[in-house]
Amino acid sequence: MGTSPAARAAGPLPQLYELVLANGRSASPYVWRIRYALAHKDVEFESVPLGFTEIAATFGERFKTVPVLRDGAELLAESWDIALYLDRTRPHAPLFAADSEVATTRLLDGWVSAEIMRRMFRIYVLDIHNAARCEDRSYFRESRERRLQGRTLEEFTADRREQLPALREAFGPVRAQLKRTPFLGGTRPNYADYLVLGALQWVASVGTLPLFSSDDGTMRAWLERCQQLYRAFGPDPREQPLFE
Amino acid sequence: MGTSPAARAAGPLPQLYELVLANGRSASPYVWRIRYALAHKDVEFESVPLGFTEIAATFGERFKTVPVLRDGAELLAESWDIALYLDRTRPHAPLFAADSEVATTRLLDGWVSAEIMRRMFRIYVLDIHNAARCEDRSYFRESRERRLQGRTLEEFTADRREQLPALREAFGPVRAQLKRTPFLGGTRPNYADYLVLGALQWVASVGTLPLFSSDDGTMRAWLERCQQLYRAFGPDPREQPLFE
Repeated sequence: MGTSPAARAAGPLPQLYELVLANGRSASPYVWRIRYALAHKDVEFESVPLGFTEIAATFGERFKTVPVLRDGAELLAESWDIALYLDRTRPHAPLFAADSEVATTRLLDGWVSAEIMRRMFRIYVLDIHNAARCEDRSYFRESRERRLQGRTLEEFTADRREQLPALREAFGPVRAQLKRTPFLGGTRPNYADYLVLGALQWVASVGTLPLFSSDDGTMRAWLERCQQLYRAFGPDPREQPLFE
Repeated sequence: MGTSPAARAAGPLPQLYELVLANGRSASPYVWRIRYALAHKDVEFESVPLGFTEIAATFGERFKTVPVLRDGAELLAESWDIALYLDRTRPHAPLFAADSEVATTRLLDGWVSAEIMRRMFRIYVLDIHNAARCEDRSYFRESRERRLQGRTLEEFTADRREQLPALREAFGPVRAQLKRTPFLGGTRPNYADYLVLGALQWVASVGTLPLFSSDDGTMRAWLERCQQLYRAFGPDPREQPLFE
């Protein structure tokens, strides 16, 4: 988090409502995107941790998901809306170089969701349940099992080891780009990096099955570069269960 | 193609070496990207059509694939190298707003290749063979069947109708973005649009199985918008076999 006088002078800190696990970590890939976006701009913020069952109670019917950002009189939800708001209100260190990059990155997000996050859910949803605070688990189980048309989380994830190769392979385009440039945004990270980092933080917060093989040097080197930049935030590849 | 005095004043026209089919159309999705990139910048060019078997003979061992662009003393291959060269030498109407957008679009290209073009090859490779000039067909068959580990093109595509739903579904992120913005690049097309358009031109040049369902209004409306901009180039959705 930033400690620059400029960031401090702006008044009360923005508040980021997050989804908290029993281990105190933030559980939402979309919250993680905004954590990185705030770090990218060196904007200090105050974290407001909520359990799965507290979101509706906190915001009434207005918002059902986090991240939610309170910034002075503004109250915003949806990570894309928040990211664009941050570029409008804090134009230094832009997340997006141009409107065309917003559109292209949003298209990219569609593929990250379809090819990476969908497979992560398939493999790690029981781990998320088990990492949730005790009081959130039955809500989490019921809401997710409804989506699974009655299968239990245990049944749904029983073959998760067989699903792992397809998830690893889905990172192929990410690895190919990281062989060309140090970050997905080129010489510096941009929101494309944070989409993928956010998904990996989700796994790192809960996972009991290592995502990457131990010899996946391309992913490891990129995570280490990100960790150097965002020490307080990133999954430390030496501590987190991301690698075999 | 551009006819502005500025474009004409620059000397002899650049030459674009293309892959030509028996029907006279250009067969390579990578060539189509560059055709659109040149149209985007309103750069006139001269087309040099080559058959599959003429590429090596034309460039010796130097280039084995098209597009190849000859621009004065410069001779370049690889569509990404050509696109970046065009932005350096003709900086008006940039294809990329910033280096970060180059990186992000190249990552996007990885997903277009893995999720869309790979499935197109699976469905349309026999159509490409059949659309090639007579004298190119045995070369095309032998080189592609080698990649298929000895299966014939007919065997490989026998179940192609069953493969179609997965290809249609792979356009999900494209459709989602086109519901937000008129083009994948936002309010105007950029190279992200041309990646996808190039793939569709590949199919439109050869396909005997309609790619999209007749009620795919999102894809149809986008193709019509592109057709309005690039009338001489685009697949005309009313004539091409892209829709059922």
